[in-house]
Amino acid sequence: MHLVAIGGSDAGISAALRARELDPSVDVTVIAADAFPNFSICGIPYYFSREVQPWQTLAHRTAAELEATGMALRLETFVTAIDPERRTLTVEAGGVSDDVSYDELVVGVGASPARAGISGLDTLGPADGVHVLHSMGDTFALERDLDERRPRTAIIIGAGYVGLEMAEALTVRGLAVTQLQRGPEVLSTFDPQLGAIVHEELVDHGVRVETGVRVASLVRESAGIVVIANREGNEVRFTADIVLVVVGVAPNTALLSAIGVPVGPGGATVVDPTMRTGIPHVWAAGDGVVTHHRLLGETYLPLGTTAHKQGRVAGENAIGGTATFAGSVGTQVVKVFDVVAARTGLRDQDAATAGFSPRTAASSADDHKRYYPGATTIDFRVTGDERDGRLLGAQLVGRRSAEVSKRVDTFATAIHHRMTVAEMSALDLSYTPPLGSPWDAVQMASQAWERGVR
Amino acid sequence: MHLVAIGGSDAGISAALRARELDPSVDVTVIAADAFPNFSICGIPYYFSREVQPWQTLAHRTAAELEATGMALRLETFVTAIDPERRTLTVEAGGVSDDVSYDELVVGVGASPARAGISGLDTLGPADGVHVLHSMGDTFALERDLDERRPRTAIIIGAGYVGLEMAEALTVRGLAVTQLQRGPEVLSTFDPQLGAIVHEELVDHGVRVETGVRVASLVRESAGIVVIANREGNEVRFTADIVLVVVGVAPNTALLSAIGVPVGPGGATVVDPTMRTGIPHVWAAGDGVVTHHRLLGETYLPLGTTAHKQGRVAGENAIGGTATFAGSVGTQVVKVFDVVAARTGLRDQDAATAGFSPRTAASSADDHKRYYPGATTIDFRVTGDERDGRLLGAQLVGRRSAEVSKRVDTFATAIHHRMTVAEMSALDLSYTPPLGSPWDAVQMASQAWERGVR
Repeated sequence: MHLVAIGGSDAGISAALRARELDPSVDVTVIAADAFPNFSICGIPYYFSREVQPWQTLAHRTAAELEATGMALRLETFVTAIDPERRTLTVEAGGVSDDVSYDELVVGVGASPARAGISGLDTLGPADGVHVLHSMGDTFALERDLDERRPRTAIIIGAGYVGLEMAEALTVRGLAVTQLQRGPEVLSTFDPQLGAIVHEELVDHGVRVETGVRVASLVRESAGIVVIANREGNEVRFTADIVLVVVGVAPNTALLSAIGVPVGPGGATVVDPTMRTGIPHVWAAGDGVVTHHRLLGETYLPLGTTAHKQGRVAGENAIGGTATFAGSVGTQVVKVFDVVAARTGLRDQDAATAGFSPRTAASSADDHKRYYPGATTIDFRVTGDERDGRLLGAQLVGRRSAEVSKRVDTFATAIHHRMTVAEMSALDLSYTPPLGSPWDAVQMASQAWERGVR
Repeated sequence: MHLVAIGGSDAGISAALRARELDPSVDVTVIAADAFPNFSICGIPYYFSREVQPWQTLAHRTAAELEATGMALRLETFVTAIDPERRTLTVEAGGVSDDVSYDELVVGVGASPARAGISGLDTLGPADGVHVLHSMGDTFALERDLDERRPRTAIIIGAGYVGLEMAEALTVRGLAVTQLQRGPEVLSTFDPQLGAIVHEELVDHGVRVETGVRVASLVRESAGIVVIANREGNEVRFTADIVLVVVGVAPNTALLSAIGVPVGPGGATVVDPTMRTGIPHVWAAGDGVVTHHRLLGETYLPLGTTAHKQGRVAGENAIGGTATFAGSVGTQVVKVFDVVAARTGLRDQDAATAGFSPRTAASSADDHKRYYPGATTIDFRVTGDERDGRLLGAQLVGRRSAEVSKRVDTFATAIHHRMTVAEMSALDLSYTPPLGSPWDAVQMASQAWERGVR
């Protein structure tokens, strides 16, 4: 059996590793377009902040470590076509075309940076000081630009996870950063009341944050890159030495669409929860495919954690297994300077759109007993269904010491199991005064929802 | 309706608060034997370390705050008898006897320090430098002793949670501490391989740790208090200026036994999961009663977190509710200097005794991506049933920065829901490089169990 995985990032590598783990007799080949398989793309901002050096340490595993598991790697190799009848791929490497045959194929080609209809992005690039950030190639281009041109000012278009992490990184690097956000508040996957806490943390560290700014175009002028935007009907302009565009991603679907695999939510390739594409012997996983969500059904939510899980399922099933992707609940976390924001499940408006009857309660609770030194407050927004009390979502923002990231995991696990908000109080969670309270903060926030809503 | 709660600690106060929260028309009286209702007994070691000052801040709520919720407090009042026919209590305060009538009664009289058959404990007390530690009265006695006699050496008999926390506290206070433990390793609710990490942390901070020491008696001599013990059949003696005996607790059951409520596991009062004693209108909760455990059924496991939950159930049901205590899973955590040890569920031998077919796998995983500064290793022992893969328990030890306490909560929530070890990989847990990994450490430990056992 020859399993081929296309894509050297989370989904492809996870599929390859899982297949080799379960059956070391399976031949596995990973074909990757770039030279950097299994790099932690989520770690790139920490390379720019210089907390991570050298860049090679960003690899989850080195190419040698991957090969030691028994898989073959074909790097800097592009797959241009799939022939599902003959079970062959057309590949190109170094200008030479070739065929690769497979018994089972896992496609994990991921996504590409979105451009949000911003004009100028098609002509301006790294040489002009205009960057996107998605691959190690993008990383090297930006680093070279920082190194050679020594820009003093930067504009970051977008204030999602990567945008915020890069605002921190470039600030730490000594650049004066202006962050532009289309919506009314940074971190638009959180309610604005909590995004405002992150906003304040950015400002406290010297980042200029401009919200409600819809960017139309980029122009290169002698003073730098000019960002032309619209705010409340008026044109506004921002100028900086470099501009970083981090406004999300768009799934790469061309390879599978060409053989008839349809696209669904978010324009992503449709797969079933076993990662089957519908084309015999062809599986797909990762940022290029739809996400099965335990509350929303089929949606698109590209995340590394999901890609790992989907890839593992695809790798298992491709060699004859019966795994199923159990479904995302939308858990995400970001650290911005000393603040951590974490969320899982649905917010009010998302839940209402999905047919729930959501109510959201804001509350705050100490991360540990107030009498013990270092206690800080975690701000919560808990969302539940007012009809049946079902827990639908939770958002938490607190200081880094407050274990916010692992507290959201308790909510995520509860949502996975369809708990009610009230049932959160039944969980036997850990307590010691330096680290918690007899009712953990997540339970106090749940009880606040009960008091406020039920 | 007049609800009376006996006991001013977690169970009694939680019952009173819950009743007042649900129905502000209910008259609630709390009768407490000492003068300090609603104190955080778990915080006492941090008073001794001087991290918590003054002692008043150890109160979860002050007496005034409790009274502001509309409950009446009768402090320094002993209940000597219950008359379930007439629904009255005999109480004594300041040498005067009195009757108190009730419509519903919640008994939360807790537990008392165990003495483990150590002779001398009946005659030696605080004036001799021999202390137990369970109440604010014990706290003041020890503090007075530390203050007035300025002891330089201390022996702590017992190396459970409180014993370890007190070893840290007295070390921080400048005393030379010797810790005596009957079993082969400290922290006997953990497997010795993990207890050894805590042991090392104690030694690194100057604590002398002696294991395998069975204490027989205490004698006061001119050199100090002599602890006479047996180790491997030989008598051993340890001498110090003060001795602290923290070897667990025994449930207080006299009041309810006198009216015919039976005792069960651990000698604790038997209640059903609604906290009903079987005597009409009499409920009981907290460290005096049995614990319903989701894996073990009825057991005895006195803990503040459980007492809060049981008290809440009792308070709700006493005024006509239909709450049920959902059951403990045995979650506990302790911080010892810079190490945190957390556990939930069952260990191998406990699980085997309960009829499971347990297998335990040891592994370790980084708390966050190794490339980001500050990563540390968490040591895991995951226990599952080899027949059906059911998750039975988890033990974690790591540095304080590793969010061990809230990671055990993910296992606790999973055990609550009868997950298999394999299903842990399906959980959508949070990830950002400074705080986790694409597969969280708890998932990597679960995958290690799968690889090793299944």
